Amino acid sequence: MKLLSFIANGRASFGAVKDNGVVDLGTRMAGCTTLRQLLESGRVAEAAKLVASTAPDHPLDAISFAPVIPDPGKIICVGLNYRDHVAETGRTVTEKPALFVRFPCSQVGHLQPIVKPGVSDDFDYEGELALVIGKGGRHIPASRALEYVAGYACYNEGSIRDWQRHTSQFLSGKTFAESGSFGPWLVTADEIPDPSKLRLQTRLNGSVVQDTTTDLLITGIPELIAYISTICPLVPGDVIVTGTPGGVGAKRTPPLWMRPGDIVEVEISGIGILRNKVIAEAD
Amino acid sequence: MKLLSFIANGRASFGAVKDNGVVDLGTRMAGCTTLRQLLESGRVAEAAKLVASTAPDHPLDAISFAPVIPDPGKIICVGLNYRDHVAETGRTVTEKPALFVRFPCSQVGHLQPIVKPGVSDDFDYEGELALVIGKGGRHIPASRALEYVAGYACYNEGSIRDWQRHTSQFLSGKTFAESGSFGPWLVTADEIPDPSKLRLQTRLNGSVVQDTTTDLLITGIPELIAYISTICPLVPGDVIVTGTPGGVGAKRTPPLWMRPGDIVEVEISGIGILRNKVIAEAD
Repeated sequence: MKLLSFIANGRASFGAVKDNGVVDLGTRMAGCTTLRQLLESGRVAEAAKLVASTAPDHPLDAISFAPVIPDPGKIICVGLNYRDHVAETGRTVTEKPALFVRFPCSQVGHLQPIVKPGVSDDFDYEGELALVIGKGGRHIPASRALEYVAGYACYNEGSIRDWQRHTSQFLSGKTFAESGSFGPWLVTADEIPDPSKLRLQTRLNGSVVQDTTTDLLITGIPELIAYISTICPLVPGDVIVTGTPGGVGAKRTPPLWMRPGDIVEVEISGIGILRNKVIAEAD
Repeated sequence: MKLLSFIANGRASFGAVKDNGVVDLGTRMAGCTTLRQLLESGRVAEAAKLVASTAPDHPLDAISFAPVIPDPGKIICVGLNYRDHVAETGRTVTEKPALFVRFPCSQVGHLQPIVKPGVSDDFDYEGELALVIGKGGRHIPASRALEYVAGYACYNEGSIRDWQRHTSQFLSGKTFAESGSFGPWLVTADEIPDPSKLRLQTRLNGSVVQDTTTDLLITGIPELIAYISTICPLVPGDVIVTGTPGGVGAKRTPPLWMRPGDIVEVEISGIGILRNKVIAEAD
């Protein structure tokens, strides 16, 4: 099942994709008006039955896509988690994953514009596989970690490289308003039993700029969940963005930046295509 | 005025300190059940009038203190923002502030235990001045930044040093569950017209381990607000934790770690004392 957050007729809701349309679940599941609340309620199976017996409310092209989870309690990103990307940055592989954060205000949904800020032109793409936590836990063993995943989505972890390099800490370049994208939907984990068997491709104006398979993650998804949940509890709706492969624009000669008017896509097999146009920040 | 979040008789609320007691505002200000909502509503002056004319509902020792803002949308911490601390870490001063994040689950309130995790004994204190945003904005000029501050509080930015050093990024050591503390209350900005004129002291079991004045911040509060709001909007309830001075336990010979049973205090002039006991994570 493909679950998404969207806006239709001026109202924010969530639902499921069916027959090139959307079944609105926000109007049908009492007590759940957001996808995060659906995950918290543990009623995903009930939602699936409802979707099976219900005709779509909206054609897909009549909705505005919101980020898959518009308001996650945590967005934890993993840096330097593919060897080819580690190599192009001139760093060395660390035994533990390098974690940093984006705030929810830094992400938009599928087909919404991503924003190059006025203070920088060094706006880079990072295609990544994201997962959404479906069941809360602490000290989750890697052997059971996939049971805690609600589903998977595409993420464009848009980065302002000169600001990222202001200091040793990445945050400043990683959470510019509306600089990243999360979508178009999450594909529930039952349809992706092994997230290490996916192909991920990033395209800028149709040209392939990143191309990997997710078996090349240095720290795999079960180990990421185990490591992070040793630090603090994970709760439904939390998002882990698993890292970007080689090919980022900053490490090309000359650098390849995203510019206003560009179209950037992140495609992951079994999930779909996350597409965004780049615009300049308004004066 | 001292504003705080608390739990009394099993109910979470917020209020103001008066005559060694607490005036419960969560029961008196329609539409505001949390301090964050009060800030969002812009009704702090109305709250102050109400407090002036109302007797306390609870003695101070009858409440449980919650973190000043239990659920901030952002907790942005500044690393390496006092020269003596930069020097003891062996780093060099950067032109821009080093920003990282804590999640709300990493903080407790005044007099609540802070938790040494089972996976590490390298549990360090960091006494800091925190500010809470009262008015939202983007691209806030430094010259007007203090107008956006609701008030100031003490923060113990408890850090798990070996996990902080797993990689270049600090997050892993900075957001362990219940490892930090935020309180006891915020003192509204009208009572602290110049936050660069405060004295900050951290004490471990009564011994002074950090002692500074806030005029020694490398990047001052107005410049921090200007820098961060260039990246993304600040909204009411957002928290900025401004950095710790020299004297951290990790840089002593031998290192001085917080251990179960220890009492740690962060005192800031004009604000008060934030006190916490250290306990070990339950098995």
